[in-house]
Amino acid sequence: MSPPLVIKNGTVVNEDGMFKADVLVKNGVIVEVSANIIPLPDMELIDASDRLVIPGGIDPHTHMQMPYMGEVTKDDFLKGTEAAVAGGTTMIIDFCCPDHRNGESLMSGYNRWRGWADPKVCCDYGLSVAITQWRPETAEQMALITSPEYGVNSFKFYMAYEGTLMVRDDEMYRAMQECAKLRALARVHCENGAVIKEKEIDLLAKGVTGPEGHTQSRPEEIEAEATNRACVLAAQANCPLYVVHVMTKGAAAAISHHRAQGSIVFGEPIAAGLALDGSHYYDDDWLHAARYVMSPPLSRDPTTPELLMKLLAAGELHLTGTDNCTYDCRQKSLGKGNFTKIPNGINGVEDRMSVVWEKGVHSGIIDPMRYVSITSATAAKIFNIYPKKGRIAVGSDADIVIFNPNAIRTISADTHHHNLDFNIFEGIQCHGVAEITISS
Amino acid sequence: MSPPLVIKNGTVVNEDGMFKADVLVKNGVIVEVSANIIPLPDMELIDASDRLVIPGGIDPHTHMQMPYMGEVTKDDFLKGTEAAVAGGTTMIIDFCCPDHRNGESLMSGYNRWRGWADPKVCCDYGLSVAITQWRPETAEQMALITSPEYGVNSFKFYMAYEGTLMVRDDEMYRAMQECAKLRALARVHCENGAVIKEKEIDLLAKGVTGPEGHTQSRPEEIEAEATNRACVLAAQANCPLYVVHVMTKGAAAAISHHRAQGSIVFGEPIAAGLALDGSHYYDDDWLHAARYVMSPPLSRDPTTPELLMKLLAAGELHLTGTDNCTYDCRQKSLGKGNFTKIPNGINGVEDRMSVVWEKGVHSGIIDPMRYVSITSATAAKIFNIYPKKGRIAVGSDADIVIFNPNAIRTISADTHHHNLDFNIFEGIQCHGVAEITISS
Amino acid sequence: MSPPLVIKNGTVVNEDGMFKADVLVKNGVIVEVSANIIPLPDMELIDASDRLVIPGGIDPHTHMQMPYMGEVTKDDFLKGTEAAVAGGTTMIIDFCCPDHRNGESLMSGYNRWRGWADPKVCCDYGLSVAITQWRPETAEQMALITSPEYGVNSFKFYMAYEGTLMVRDDEMYRAMQECAKLRALARVHCENGAVIKEKEIDLLAKGVTGPEGHTQSRPEEIEAEATNRACVLAAQANCPLYVVHVMTKGAAAAISHHRAQGSIVFGEPIAAGLALDGSHYYDDDWLHAARYVMSPPLSRDPTTPELLMKLLAAGELHLTGTDNCTYDCRQKSLGKGNFTKIPNGINGVEDRMSVVWEKGVHSGIIDPMRYVSITSATAAKIFNIYPKKGRIAVGSDADIVIFNPNAIRTISADTHHHNLDFNIFEGIQCHGVAEITISS
Amino acid sequence: MSPPLVIKNGTVVNEDGMFKADVLVKNGVIVEVSANIIPLPDMELIDASDRLVIPGGIDPHTHMQMPYMGEVTKDDFLKGTEAAVAGGTTMIIDFCCPDHRNGESLMSGYNRWRGWADPKVCCDYGLSVAITQWRPETAEQMALITSPEYGVNSFKFYMAYEGTLMVRDDEMYRAMQECAKLRALARVHCENGAVIKEKEIDLLAKGVTGPEGHTQSRPEEIEAEATNRACVLAAQANCPLYVVHVMTKGAAAAISHHRAQGSIVFGEPIAAGLALDGSHYYDDDWLHAARYVMSPPLSRDPTTPELLMKLLAAGELHLTGTDNCTYDCRQKSLGKGNFTKIPNGINGVEDRMSVVWEKGVHSGIIDPMRYVSITSATAAKIFNIYPKKGRIAVGSDADIVIFNPNAIRTISADTHHHNLDFNIFEGIQCHGVAEITISS
Repeated sequence: MSPPLVIKNGTVVNEDGMFKADVLVKNGVIVEVSANIIPLPDMELIDASDRLVIPGGIDPHTHMQMPYMGEVTKDDFLKGTEAAVAGGTTMIIDFCCPDHRNGESLMSGYNRWRGWADPKVCCDYGLSVAITQWRPETAEQMALITSPEYGVNSFKFYMAYEGTLMVRDDEMYRAMQECAKLRALARVHCENGAVIKEKEIDLLAKGVTGPEGHTQSRPEEIEAEATNRACVLAAQANCPLYVVHVMTKGAAAAISHHRAQGSIVFGEPIAAGLALDGSHYYDDDWLHAARYVMSPPLSRDPTTPELLMKLLAAGELHLTGTDNCTYDCRQKSLGKGNFTKIPNGINGVEDRMSVVWEKGVHSGIIDPMRYVSITSATAAKIFNIYPKKGRIAVGSDADIVIFNPNAIRTISADTHHHNLDFNIFEGIQCHGVAEITISS
Repeated sequence: MSPPLVIKNGTVVNEDGMFKADVLVKNGVIVEVSANIIPLPDMELIDASDRLVIPGGIDPHTHMQMPYMGEVTKDDFLKGTEAAVAGGTTMIIDFCCPDHRNGESLMSGYNRWRGWADPKVCCDYGLSVAITQWRPETAEQMALITSPEYGVNSFKFYMAYEGTLMVRDDEMYRAMQECAKLRALARVHCENGAVIKEKEIDLLAKGVTGPEGHTQSRPEEIEAEATNRACVLAAQANCPLYVVHVMTKGAAAAISHHRAQGSIVFGEPIAAGLALDGSHYYDDDWLHAARYVMSPPLSRDPTTPELLMKLLAAGELHLTGTDNCTYDCRQKSLGKGNFTKIPNGINGVEDRMSVVWEKGVHSGIIDPMRYVSITSATAAKIFNIYPKKGRIAVGSDADIVIFNPNAIRTISADTHHHNLDFNIFEGIQCHGVAEITISS
Repeated sequence: MSPPLVIKNGTVVNEDGMFKADVLVKNGVIVEVSANIIPLPDMELIDASDRLVIPGGIDPHTHMQMPYMGEVTKDDFLKGTEAAVAGGTTMIIDFCCPDHRNGESLMSGYNRWRGWADPKVCCDYGLSVAITQWRPETAEQMALITSPEYGVNSFKFYMAYEGTLMVRDDEMYRAMQECAKLRALARVHCENGAVIKEKEIDLLAKGVTGPEGHTQSRPEEIEAEATNRACVLAAQANCPLYVVHVMTKGAAAAISHHRAQGSIVFGEPIAAGLALDGSHYYDDDWLHAARYVMSPPLSRDPTTPELLMKLLAAGELHLTGTDNCTYDCRQKSLGKGNFTKIPNGINGVEDRMSVVWEKGVHSGIIDPMRYVSITSATAAKIFNIYPKKGRIAVGSDADIVIFNPNAIRTISADTHHHNLDFNIFEGIQCHGVAEITISS
Repeated sequence: MSPPLVIKNGTVVNEDGMFKADVLVKNGVIVEVSANIIPLPDMELIDASDRLVIPGGIDPHTHMQMPYMGEVTKDDFLKGTEAAVAGGTTMIIDFCCPDHRNGESLMSGYNRWRGWADPKVCCDYGLSVAITQWRPETAEQMALITSPEYGVNSFKFYMAYEGTLMVRDDEMYRAMQECAKLRALARVHCENGAVIKEKEIDLLAKGVTGPEGHTQSRPEEIEAEATNRACVLAAQANCPLYVVHVMTKGAAAAISHHRAQGSIVFGEPIAAGLALDGSHYYDDDWLHAARYVMSPPLSRDPTTPELLMKLLAAGELHLTGTDNCTYDCRQKSLGKGNFTKIPNGINGVEDRMSVVWEKGVHSGIIDPMRYVSITSATAAKIFNIYPKKGRIAVGSDADIVIFNPNAIRTISADTHHHNLDFNIFEGIQCHGVAEITISS
């Protein structure tokens, strides 16, 4: 058991306030937040002068150790959470994808994922469970897995990846009704998988085989369409909706359109989408381009990243994830000659806190309180772990980051903690560094 | 062969002008339109004083003699076209629905329909061909049926009626690409059939079995969603889109949304939607309510009909059809105890010209030229038969209606020409009557 | 000095959580919130079993003792704040309207208002200062009045009431730029006053003199137009915007439209707009109709109130006010024969807490935490007094309401605390009563 | 009197059809359009093989010989109409701007303009009359000037140019009501002049004096705001609206927004806006940049021109003008050191027909029939001179252009017919040339 810890002289930042205060931690819990805590001799001491003391980041969207198409993502639950903690993130929500369409039960899949994660994770984690088919037994399994024994409170649906993960509208609507009944959250990957499949066929037939085919097969309108459809189905099912990885203006507009009619919809842009655009897909270097292949793809509209950040500021988008799903160069190279075989996914879990600060706070669009909201507190609320997580307050877990807004670091694969031989943010200079991460 | 005909003293109305002129018809063709035609002794003469001389109506959306779910619509091609002509309509575009998903070729279906229609029709007609599944042979058949031999230039897609007529998104996208290649038009019934199916199951399970279940199972948002999706898929396929029976504000808004981004989309409200609202579904009399069952259902928002007419005025919607698809009381009664078994369809082909005049011109929203545009000329252009049809001009077919804007008639099943034992417009008084219909 | 107070056994509700806890108050400040506080003998005790313990309401929009057009509102700062406290509101933000266009300085007006309010108020209050003209000295006065000495942090602009309160676009834009510089908030009454003035003239000329003329002279589109304009001007000035009394769907849509482009805009519906519609303006009883005259008027669309509540739920609207501005029957009657002379204003400060609970929580649209947000916490944040106000937490002011969600009361002028001989909510039954109000 | 003229072997293009036909002209009127006209010996003959025979262009928006700010535009009615005819335009609608705010009557201004134009014009012309202030006598003068004696049927309003041309909202609303009564059209220049004025002051104060200040002082949102406002005011006045020079996506979206609610609104992009973007304002060469100064300015979004053309294709925008208003280099240079003194205006009347063909038809967005619609027929309809103008038909004026879609010309000041020492389209290569222009 660690000794008590006092964090002195820092500025505590919560989503609803920031103030000078010292913080006392005992046994992994914050036990005092007050003006002047005198450290006792047996206590550890951190001097947070000129630093912010913020709730540890919560990344609501990662895929550690994810098996897909015969490969497994390079960041397993150990390396992935090491990277998370290194960057100031103390909790991840990962996705468990049972092979439900081949009959695996949700609980069995859940247990598989727990078996991979539990021995390895070095920070807190939660699981959203993907439903890839509606089966006679699905409703019952959803009820069971949301029971206290398992404690899952969100499900994931894919409107893309036909033949593997994608559900039909009737399936998603059915499951969303069940979510509403169970008071669970529906999280949706919004792309029209049916059209994508056809576009892939056409592009390959025309000889477009490189990574540029990836973005060409997934036009922005396709993401906006599916986002609109997900909003309608959720509203019909009376179920709150969480749109994962909002990558484009059109998807964001669809969300706003339905919010403006009174629907409860949350939108999650990701670190990559807030910092990068889709010009990378046209890089002359095949491997460079392939590294950025994820779905939905990065927007080719260079004004998209800033707009997404402004929507986070305005409250039209709500929290930031990463879709951390790391395939290395060897794996990416499996798609040489056929872009549909490039494993989809990018890094992010380590750099999210810095990238969001850089593009949001350092650029002047949001303030530090909104930063805490979109990196931590809102996720905690949505996944029902607030204020245990997401807040610096008495009784909260000691998931704390000492953040130096004046430090600068340059992102690089040379220094990152991912098990990955590149970094999509390579070379980006971030003002704002998570210097110390305390994970309860 | 009929003698030449002179129409004297009327006001000719085309979509782009109205002027006093006499009209001379020979052998079914207009041969002169000029200020003062002197009738010769061998000529027939119509005095059109105080009357409008307008192009015969073209109803772009009918289902005569349509077999569906074991029943056939009561208006066969004889009774249906008699009703059309009685009301001032001289051409219909009907739908041919080959049993393509069971392997029937488009040409075979087409020939079946021709076999039913040719011996019976008493006005011109055309056929749109429904594609209910994408099959290996479909593209080739689409090419063949749009060749001069068959002359079809539009295809119909259903996004509802799962299991019978409905196509998936990938099928519709494929076929729309083919339409673009063939320069054929894609016409789409926009409702999310997958959600409807589930809602039907739920409502029946809850004991909602009456006609109110029909409207409850098809909320307006479901039509808007599918309309949006159709617009996106058509734009992706680079194919002009024709949305049949626009019934709700949300569907109209989806069309406007995509037009405002530069997409070519045509919207067709129908006579029923311009004159009636969905309160009928809650009528205490089961049979009364059942008579109004059609899909998408009439809007329950009482301000919808007027808005649809204003959108026709503004040019955001473009032409008017009827979806004439008549099932009589016996047939409607097949759905007693289960609203999903009420045959879908209403009348309209006879009354459209009067109803559109009443709600559009008599109410002051549009002028007679726009009336001609939305009842005749635009349809003629869209289906590529203009100016042979849709215009009073030298060389055009003598499809002419002598329209009396000062006459009044009250719509009633007692007097209509449909083979139908009710009329959904029963009791509506229309100022404006097609007094004489000349069909070339 | 009051003795310490313990509130036992209640459920504390903050905007971000609700939990069972006792609350200890000393000297007007909350000093403990914890599981089991043992009252000492010298303490007062409130048993809050089955009750909610919520932050006192903050009504961000009142006009107490407001002189306008030769009359003064009936609720002076005494009666008005008595009514507020009676209903569970412990702070109001009132409007100070210096006669700036006749040269009165902002500070002089401020001091006048302070002179009226200070001796009378029985709860906390703040002042927003109206700027009714842009004058050479205005910028300097804005800077001074936002200095710590005066402490004002928001300004009010009227786009209506031409000739008295209304500012031109260039004036408002200038002042908004100054707000941005001073980090003050711009609050705007959005109606196109120029068009209203003309409509009033036309209606009176046509003989429309009754209260129905009020709503006819202020069509919904006029509010939406001005709301859009205010959003554009604020965005151009880089100034956050607070739209007071959002009364219509169109105004709410304008706000959403700009939020969806990344603008920071807050929307405030009021109690009247959440509970009533504009049918009252057509009441046969002149006086009944006149009582509801306020600007912008209540929406005649009966579906508006519920939509506004849903937008509060979704986060597209943000907090609730009242525009409490009470003129009694004698004053209302000054407009007999000329609706433009009916003093504008309605009651609300007493009933807001019950009405918002009834229409929001009791109806199932929002939960108690969101209720606290829209009645108190968000206002506290916006006006920079959070968490001193708007939160039940250690260190916060003891502005506390013991709220009984199971009690029922029927609103009536017979029992209310306003100095007013009617109540626009007369007869509305509210589930949810502020039983005890503690004002620090 | 010229001899009869036969145009042989061409393809006649009207807005609703294109077909091979010969055209016979006598005394300035088309007297025959038929398959095979045999020229008599006394007839002139034009061989239009491989050419299109189209209605002469109508430019609905020019300012010839316009006095403003002490200067007069370089194209007087002679040079301006010579340039028009050289480019295939046979009619212009110019703007008459009486000094109404200083008391000049509309008729007096009209007569002044007639005095300038009548002796000089070498093609047809019409006049829209600007109303720059609402005065007691204005309504009566509007009635008089729309009487057959003067024959004006449209009025122009400026929402910008404060202090000279700009009207307030109440004035515009009043006048629009009068337009509705007189069945005249309201044409509006949409920019928020009040905000522009303030921005100009601020920019100059900051030392921004060059042409880039022009675009910075007129952000796109300002045009969109005013466009929205004009749409609302026109709808309130029940008056059709014609928005001149739609330059930005936001303005186009505002038009679509109101059309989607059933309003009658026409939108006119101009040749410059369809071919150029606002990057010119940042050209290093002061004079180059200054040449492009017009209001509203060219959009700095490089994707705007193509979208505007697509909206013309979709029917969301309706016809094309030029705002031809030519100031030469000497005049432009008057704004050295102060961008607000650069005379506003660009050329266009000569090149519109080629530029619209190039960007519309040659690029594949529209077909030749839509080209005729947006360059001629729609203008003729809107200004009530159709089918005398805007159509190749018996009885129409012989305003005919022999257009060679296969010819290429490069626009240059060296070869143009304007009285202007530069051309904003310099160097643009156009496929499609008006080879012969016949002006009746």
